[in-house]
Amino acid sequence: MKMATSHPRWIDLRSDTVTIPTQEMLEAMVQAEVGDDVYGDDPTVNLLQEKAAEKMGKEAALFVPSGTFGNQLAIFTHTQSGDEVLIPESNHILEHEVGASAVISRVGLRPLPDQYGQVDIKDLEKRYREEDLHHPRTGLICMENAHSSGKVVPLSNLQEVYQFAQEKGISVHLDGARIFNAATFLKVKPAQIALYCDSVMFCVSKGLCAPIGSLLVGTRSFIEKARKNRKLLGGGMRQVGYLAAAGLIALEKMTKRLQEDHENARYLAKRLQEIEGIKVAEDRLDINMVFFTVEIERFSPPEFIQFLEEKNIKINLPREGEFRLVTHYWIKKEDIDYFIETGKTYFSRYYT
Amino acid sequence: MKMATSHPRWIDLRSDTVTIPTQEMLEAMVQAEVGDDVYGDDPTVNLLQEKAAEKMGKEAALFVPSGTFGNQLAIFTHTQSGDEVLIPESNHILEHEVGASAVISRVGLRPLPDQYGQVDIKDLEKRYREEDLHHPRTGLICMENAHSSGKVVPLSNLQEVYQFAQEKGISVHLDGARIFNAATFLKVKPAQIALYCDSVMFCVSKGLCAPIGSLLVGTRSFIEKARKNRKLLGGGMRQVGYLAAAGLIALEKMTKRLQEDHENARYLAKRLQEIEGIKVAEDRLDINMVFFTVEIERFSPPEFIQFLEEKNIKINLPREGEFRLVTHYWIKKEDIDYFIETGKTYFSRYYT
Amino acid sequence: MKMATSHPRWIDLRSDTVTIPTQEMLEAMVQAEVGDDVYGDDPTVNLLQEKAAEKMGKEAALFVPSGTFGNQLAIFTHTQSGDEVLIPESNHILEHEVGASAVISRVGLRPLPDQYGQVDIKDLEKRYREEDLHHPRTGLICMENAHSSGKVVPLSNLQEVYQFAQEKGISVHLDGARIFNAATFLKVKPAQIALYCDSVMFCVSKGLCAPIGSLLVGTRSFIEKARKNRKLLGGGMRQVGYLAAAGLIALEKMTKRLQEDHENARYLAKRLQEIEGIKVAEDRLDINMVFFTVEIERFSPPEFIQFLEEKNIKINLPREGEFRLVTHYWIKKEDIDYFIETGKTYFSRYYT
Amino acid sequence: MKMATSHPRWIDLRSDTVTIPTQEMLEAMVQAEVGDDVYGDDPTVNLLQEKAAEKMGKEAALFVPSGTFGNQLAIFTHTQSGDEVLIPESNHILEHEVGASAVISRVGLRPLPDQYGQVDIKDLEKRYREEDLHHPRTGLICMENAHSSGKVVPLSNLQEVYQFAQEKGISVHLDGARIFNAATFLKVKPAQIALYCDSVMFCVSKGLCAPIGSLLVGTRSFIEKARKNRKLLGGGMRQVGYLAAAGLIALEKMTKRLQEDHENARYLAKRLQEIEGIKVAEDRLDINMVFFTVEIERFSPPEFIQFLEEKNIKINLPREGEFRLVTHYWIKKEDIDYFIETGKTYFSRYYT
Repeated sequence: MKMATSHPRWIDLRSDTVTIPTQEMLEAMVQAEVGDDVYGDDPTVNLLQEKAAEKMGKEAALFVPSGTFGNQLAIFTHTQSGDEVLIPESNHILEHEVGASAVISRVGLRPLPDQYGQVDIKDLEKRYREEDLHHPRTGLICMENAHSSGKVVPLSNLQEVYQFAQEKGISVHLDGARIFNAATFLKVKPAQIALYCDSVMFCVSKGLCAPIGSLLVGTRSFIEKARKNRKLLGGGMRQVGYLAAAGLIALEKMTKRLQEDHENARYLAKRLQEIEGIKVAEDRLDINMVFFTVEIERFSPPEFIQFLEEKNIKINLPREGEFRLVTHYWIKKEDIDYFIETGKTYFSRYYT
Repeated sequence: MKMATSHPRWIDLRSDTVTIPTQEMLEAMVQAEVGDDVYGDDPTVNLLQEKAAEKMGKEAALFVPSGTFGNQLAIFTHTQSGDEVLIPESNHILEHEVGASAVISRVGLRPLPDQYGQVDIKDLEKRYREEDLHHPRTGLICMENAHSSGKVVPLSNLQEVYQFAQEKGISVHLDGARIFNAATFLKVKPAQIALYCDSVMFCVSKGLCAPIGSLLVGTRSFIEKARKNRKLLGGGMRQVGYLAAAGLIALEKMTKRLQEDHENARYLAKRLQEIEGIKVAEDRLDINMVFFTVEIERFSPPEFIQFLEEKNIKINLPREGEFRLVTHYWIKKEDIDYFIETGKTYFSRYYT
Repeated sequence: MKMATSHPRWIDLRSDTVTIPTQEMLEAMVQAEVGDDVYGDDPTVNLLQEKAAEKMGKEAALFVPSGTFGNQLAIFTHTQSGDEVLIPESNHILEHEVGASAVISRVGLRPLPDQYGQVDIKDLEKRYREEDLHHPRTGLICMENAHSSGKVVPLSNLQEVYQFAQEKGISVHLDGARIFNAATFLKVKPAQIALYCDSVMFCVSKGLCAPIGSLLVGTRSFIEKARKNRKLLGGGMRQVGYLAAAGLIALEKMTKRLQEDHENARYLAKRLQEIEGIKVAEDRLDINMVFFTVEIERFSPPEFIQFLEEKNIKINLPREGEFRLVTHYWIKKEDIDYFIETGKTYFSRYYT
Repeated sequence: MKMATSHPRWIDLRSDTVTIPTQEMLEAMVQAEVGDDVYGDDPTVNLLQEKAAEKMGKEAALFVPSGTFGNQLAIFTHTQSGDEVLIPESNHILEHEVGASAVISRVGLRPLPDQYGQVDIKDLEKRYREEDLHHPRTGLICMENAHSSGKVVPLSNLQEVYQFAQEKGISVHLDGARIFNAATFLKVKPAQIALYCDSVMFCVSKGLCAPIGSLLVGTRSFIEKARKNRKLLGGGMRQVGYLAAAGLIALEKMTKRLQEDHENARYLAKRLQEIEGIKVAEDRLDINMVFFTVEIERFSPPEFIQFLEEKNIKINLPREGEFRLVTHYWIKKEDIDYFIETGKTYFSRYYT
């Protein structure tokens, strides 16, 4: 039986969300034993859920179609209409999830000033609401680790936040879309990060290469409630085992190789600085991301991107003036070298 | 390369949602060309969406993780908070989607008395709201075909409803989870059914055997709006092509063999009547479903189900006293014979 | 000090909502001792709330700006997002409150077939939801007494419904906008009606003549929760005592004279039948309302209404072909005679 | 006819919301010509609405039961579910309206860093959302003037914000609960402030002494939409003219005497500084509010408040360590002197 060519045609640095599965994952997918997961009959997703819970040191887990789905499901399950959720202002849930929490959960996101996802406990205290006729209830705190700025939030900050939450009797949800990148950087098991939250969402897609899927993890009773809410939100799927089979390899194997992506990112950062006019954000090289700006007056991002595309390289437009490159399984050291050489060729036009 | 055994271990008559993919589908899945669908990069899902739109005679389509997701996304995209949606009382959206439309769309479902999904236009007129300070806006009409009662709504009824809607300037959404079963029964193309709605959702899972996925179909502008709403609701997935590859075979091939499932259902119905005490709903044998009651005083459904399970047969508990059996690709005529013989053995205890 | 002329210029039969306060009420208003009710400082509203609770045989009460506000606040306080609320299809909450419950509470109203607000317990049982992954929770039952069809629901029906609710562990809210009319008809105290619900809303406006205001009544903990929700919904007002002062007279005095309005309604009904072509709904004369149709081919409602207006009489356009007239404090027997004579003059044109 | 004693028993410095109506207002109330406002029949509220619109230089106005109701109704009417609303973080809508906008409008409030309600246009630009699959729509900007910190936002800042909004095609709502205080401070007509917004809410209660009521003002089409939304939210009331009669005097007369309250506030501030240990926020004396802290170690706010209560003075507990006193119609210069002398007596215990 023929299978898809095992390598993508592009050097795609836009995100780790573009990763396709490995050969081994594809094989596992076609061999998966499946069932109707709405009936709880799918053994492969059941196994993935069990292992996900175990990895996070929690009681139970639930497969969901996307990271956004998992985060929003967590908020919906933790809160009541009208609650206020405290969250670092630059977090994905606030910045990139289409304002979903106001729609799905009818909660207000109350931003905390943050340094790449890290918060000052005083800012938390200041925005926490004591009971008052005029106040919404503070119903949840959300954190994110690794943070999508390329930084990892230190365990001490998570611990401080969690301790505050516990004193107040409120829950903490962790957007751990890239929790394995954080664990790799911190040289700890993911459960040591998840220790400081009541629920955590992580993706088996993204840097772990599964094609689709995320897991929401928490206590058994929380996950039971979330299962019904998942159905309400349209995330109850059928023969999920095909996706879970890839997810199992993501979880068991791919989590162990992320150090390579991180090293490649740092290599990419180092080499980018060979190009005059490029300024790398050197303080944000914790994981598989590199952020840089171009300090050349006549420089045109769309032109640059088109030039790269003609050379089989994909990168995104800058956000607020800053480019982001992401390394992953399908980006090898030689791809980085090729990208750098191509970039140098392009940039040479500005120096003559 | 080894693949999963191509036949399920069970004779599973609970639903057509339990269908696993065919060998051909599995092969297509591993060979699929994929990309990140959030970036619009996945060629396989793009092709599926194109073909789905074409089959329904509409402009555009969108892949979603489930039928419930597709229906709720349609309602969310068609309506405004506070609208009232007219819908036959026995429809899936009202009966089996966890009250999602109140949560996601903040609309009221206003039930219409119905005969297996078919409505009297007078009931529609009576509940349609003229503008008044005290009235919500009637924002949408939902129909379902084939109806999950096992009946197909005649084209004339859909046409009447659609004409009413157009006169009033409101949209019609069709829950076409099993639209190909309806088309098979009516001996028309699905587009002839979809002619009488503005949007339609259909599943490539269920009787068409794809493991996961449904399509929401409508005008280009409606689908563009739905795409953003899909992201908000967490249904934006990544390398969707693996699912779409199975979906393409579902759409192109599996839609052509449903007559066989319908005939098997009628065969099953006929043979069930050989068993004394079983009463088949003979007026609801349009598609791949058979409904029956057991008119034996001491009969215990849980005991019967357990007996069947020991013989490798799965059926569901009755709902309001009525059993439902569903035929599909993995149910052959001999499976039906085996089921009948097993049933006869069980029921014999009541006749002595 | 001059006061407003104590009698309206019009014979206004449109509704009992048009009633202006009595002279005694106006005097009480200007003499009221008031305070800032958001601080709980208003002694007059506190007294009204106490007396309202007492009259209904409940623990506590809360003043709200309107009947719709009170009903919606009750639903919001009793339920969770996504719940289903069972309610007779012809009730005010479903028919005339702008679909508010989908917006404010995100619940689905599940209509019950009803006979003027009275339900068959079998219809309730049929729509009550057992726990299931596909079902919303049945979160509340709403009843209405007196019903706005002009009928009073018998105590036995309320009792049956309440008993069902208690067995299932769900609450009952009573829309008692005109509970004193119901009590007058049934010759019982209102608390004997409110015995069969967990919360009740009643209006001191309408037939009781206070200019503004309704009371939501229930257990102390329910009312405490409702107080915060009232603030959220913008119903926390300041020197409410002016309205409460009128409300106190409404509650203490005006509730005792409703028999007169009911007799006037029956007198009006009797006299209407003197007019050829008018057909009174004789089965719906329980309270202060009279419903009739006009069975004359060339008859034009707008023309008739304009004719009456020129004679200083106001009535509403018919709804679904049926006129409704409402008697109240400001409609005396001679006003009815005048209306009948004026009507006879108008209708005489059809008999020649 | 006897009327309520025209002076409150307390020197109440807690807020201007505690104001009772003047004798003239009470007289106007009892003489008011009223009607059923749900039918649009109340001439007094119609007149108030006309005059309110005129004063704000807008087309139309709507009477609502409270300031919170008016603000939330404005947001509900301007936005769609899921929108993001930009708002200074310290504004009343975000801080003191119970998180209502997430519940009623399903919008996210995106706080802007602010200096007493004044914003840096760069912070606005940074949080404004360009269209993107991951972004909610920026649907509205809210400002507040006077700001409840005691400061007035300069016209130039409002103008800058409004210009930005117009360039982006979004609306601005102004929480003008105390817009007449702002106008008094700025020495402009309120319409010159309202020039920089699409809708404005102002209160006739608070410093203007009407017992209940606020007005929402905007274009005719906006107000028509708001009228229906008001009904949905339960704010449609009946014989509103009694409240509107007081509102008319508030609007016509009381708006002209606010300078006196402002001067009294400054007098109070000056005299407070005679007390050792009290530190007045001298930069926030624009309107009728005085903020101060007590820098004495053993000082106990609850004890101080109780002492004052025994002397017939009411003040609130401090918020985040800061006391707020509010002057108004019922606070005369001699009341301030009495308060200061009483305070001195109390504080003397700390100096011995």
